[in-house]
Amino acid sequence: MAERGLRLPDQARVVNVGLPLFGDAVRSQDAPAVDVDWRIPAAGQADLVHSLERLYGRWAEGIDAANREAVRRIDEGRPQLVAIAAMHEAVPGVGERTILHCGPPLEWAAFCDPLRRSVRAAVMAEGWAANPETAESMIAAGEVSLEAANDHDTVVPMATSIGPSSPVFVVDNQQGGTRAFSSLNQGPGKVAWFGVDAPEAVARLVWLRDAAAPVLVEALRGSGPIDIFSLAAQAVQMGDDVHMRTQASTNLLLRTLLPHLVRVDSPHLPAVAEFLSAAYLFFLNLAMAGARTLVASAAGIPSSSIVTGMARNGTTYGIQVSGLGRRWFVCDAPPVGRALYYSGFGPETSAPDIGDSAVLELVGLGSAAAAGSPAVAGFVGGTMADAAATTMRMDRICAGRSTRFMIPTLDFRGTPIGVDLRRVVELDTTPTVNTGILHRSAGTGQVGAGVAEAPIECFQEALRALDATLG
Amino acid sequence: MAERGLRLPDQARVVNVGLPLFGDAVRSQDAPAVDVDWRIPAAGQADLVHSLERLYGRWAEGIDAANREAVRRIDEGRPQLVAIAAMHEAVPGVGERTILHCGPPLEWAAFCDPLRRSVRAAVMAEGWAANPETAESMIAAGEVSLEAANDHDTVVPMATSIGPSSPVFVVDNQQGGTRAFSSLNQGPGKVAWFGVDAPEAVARLVWLRDAAAPVLVEALRGSGPIDIFSLAAQAVQMGDDVHMRTQASTNLLLRTLLPHLVRVDSPHLPAVAEFLSAAYLFFLNLAMAGARTLVASAAGIPSSSIVTGMARNGTTYGIQVSGLGRRWFVCDAPPVGRALYYSGFGPETSAPDIGDSAVLELVGLGSAAAAGSPAVAGFVGGTMADAAATTMRMDRICAGRSTRFMIPTLDFRGTPIGVDLRRVVELDTTPTVNTGILHRSAGTGQVGAGVAEAPIECFQEALRALDATLG
Repeated sequence: MAERGLRLPDQARVVNVGLPLFGDAVRSQDAPAVDVDWRIPAAGQADLVHSLERLYGRWAEGIDAANREAVRRIDEGRPQLVAIAAMHEAVPGVGERTILHCGPPLEWAAFCDPLRRSVRAAVMAEGWAANPETAESMIAAGEVSLEAANDHDTVVPMATSIGPSSPVFVVDNQQGGTRAFSSLNQGPGKVAWFGVDAPEAVARLVWLRDAAAPVLVEALRGSGPIDIFSLAAQAVQMGDDVHMRTQASTNLLLRTLLPHLVRVDSPHLPAVAEFLSAAYLFFLNLAMAGARTLVASAAGIPSSSIVTGMARNGTTYGIQVSGLGRRWFVCDAPPVGRALYYSGFGPETSAPDIGDSAVLELVGLGSAAAAGSPAVAGFVGGTMADAAATTMRMDRICAGRSTRFMIPTLDFRGTPIGVDLRRVVELDTTPTVNTGILHRSAGTGQVGAGVAEAPIECFQEALRALDATLG
Repeated sequence: MAERGLRLPDQARVVNVGLPLFGDAVRSQDAPAVDVDWRIPAAGQADLVHSLERLYGRWAEGIDAANREAVRRIDEGRPQLVAIAAMHEAVPGVGERTILHCGPPLEWAAFCDPLRRSVRAAVMAEGWAANPETAESMIAAGEVSLEAANDHDTVVPMATSIGPSSPVFVVDNQQGGTRAFSSLNQGPGKVAWFGVDAPEAVARLVWLRDAAAPVLVEALRGSGPIDIFSLAAQAVQMGDDVHMRTQASTNLLLRTLLPHLVRVDSPHLPAVAEFLSAAYLFFLNLAMAGARTLVASAAGIPSSSIVTGMARNGTTYGIQVSGLGRRWFVCDAPPVGRALYYSGFGPETSAPDIGDSAVLELVGLGSAAAAGSPAVAGFVGGTMADAAATTMRMDRICAGRSTRFMIPTLDFRGTPIGVDLRRVVELDTTPTVNTGILHRSAGTGQVGAGVAEAPIECFQEALRALDATLG
């Protein structure tokens, strides 16, 4: 019996599933161990596990086919900048006294401080009020209609809000039959999109409308339509994630516009050229409008579990899902997790995650393109391996890969596109979003930047809704 | 005896020195083997081995100290573009009927076809001859003085030659007390620097002088001095090797010049803006002049074995070494080894390696910065790992690393700088140079691009000379 009894092996090679602790214990004894990062699906919530059983089971075929179509549309659309025009002329269905703001719809009382300031700045730039106090009372009295930009096919970064006279980029996606809009980037400094309502922030808005926009309109007339994601694809190979960093893409845009800018006959041209030369995030808003045309073209496909909207207003975080149309699924906006702060600032002085720019992460840019971006690496650990891990996290929750945004350091693999709601909930892994951080109350503007994890609750709620819709 | 006799081990872990064949044989039997890439020093040439014994032995201390100083100067100089002026006004010591050409000095009879054409184009642009035939006879009759640009602190890419009226960049390195010059990049197409002497190539030279240069002079007056390698350092993190690819650096330059370009009052401005917008190698010549100021500041340090000049004229390949002053060590120019050709062209239609741009490889750019460049990867195997191997090859023969050119994919390590003549000869490993390829005879311009290995013979000759000087 003794000879045939239990014998421990002399050597062991271990595959460890779940907690890395056990693998570490094996490795500490000089034996090889491979960790499999396994977690209980949907963090063990029984109703979600049952929903996932159906969404990966009896309905999987329909969902997969719908998702393939959604991914195809996101991948194949070729958004073009076709015009710059006043918001009230370009954006359908907005009234005379409307301000469009970032993120999901929200009651004025719930607006965070930076967005309140930005709305007041927009009201002053429209000439409806001469100071923040008057603006505040008008808004509180309901004399201004506050609407979510997203609900008007418009996307605006950080705490941007825009009034009817604001110039907007008009971007067409012929392949997808969609059109979207974004504001002009307001540049660095004391600016309303960073939650500032000081006089210089209002002056910048007025200058963008009265000086910059006319110059850009004339330059664009010379250049003709600009293929936004052709520039972005080059920029991804030049270190841009085209969200947190848009230096290469902005420079490519300026190079494209250069021959037409110098021909513009306007006294504002020198100042506009100076502004453009220093506005290193100028391309951001263009990329966002382009991204919006893509997700809009992928929206409304019955059964599809692809996320087609993601936006924050500094109070709530909202997503939209292709198979569920324009319905918002909303929860509290979280703080920005992995962050670097300007000297003297920190989490305690920071507003929650804000802005519509998270739409970029749905089309293969931002954190999906982190692997190619030295600038993003600085926010996620410092090395390009850390940046690659950020892209790989997005890859695990996406249904496809871009054929236009290629990452050299991943052997020219395409960036992940088409966030699949099922995978997000199953793996309890939400999209990460590269973003700036604003002061929570002082109106001093940007205080840092970082990588934010989307909150899981709105995805869970959307999953329940998709299950209910299909059932 | 039998028990204590020779017993083969049951397991073997092998370190294989030299031919990888033996390591492969071990690995094919599932045993681990690590290859050490060892070769006989100096390819086994006895006199060189003896020289190396002295240069690494009794004189090593002095050489190492001199080399540290040379590397410091290469690393710490901050070349600035300070002016654009006519060559005869800016470059000291050139006569009225002088043409400066790329590469080491050479007799006219030995000039390769593309450089002959380029010199004829320069003669025509000066107005000394109305057609190539007249230009050819003038040159053959000795009516034009042909001198190596390098011997006048000037560096010019590919088959560039410049006459007295040609505009040149004037670049100052205050830290090193040096000044250098380069021609304006002639842009793509049928151009003299690609070995074309057709009328449009001559017209381009005239236009650069009469239209582009005055516009750029005025823009530069507005911008003030431009820190060339501050732009290049950013560009290295944006996929430029700043030799074969200068897209990011050119765009950064254009962004810097934009506010000043739009203020230029000249009827030529629109055409110049169009040219700049399409001249994706415009920064190349600036980077070369900057590099030249650095190696010039490191030249003439007694005992130093750092290579301070490297240039080709399509016939010969020449190097200069710090401890040996301005003396050229010359051998035949090789073909460009690893190359990609335009459709319809190949090695048989290609001129040998040509141009002064190899100076970039001496200061941490070009193949030294390949690891960060997706564009270069395409020429050396396709992957970023292949590009990294190109940088690592340079690292093995260099004495230091740049503190300004950092490679994200190598954990932000600096690119190798300061090619050490001793290491080149010892390892029988020459610098590689990222370069374009010209047609050998037809005057049709560029036919491809690739990565060329410098020939070993000129380094061996220089090593013998350094040994003799010290002895």
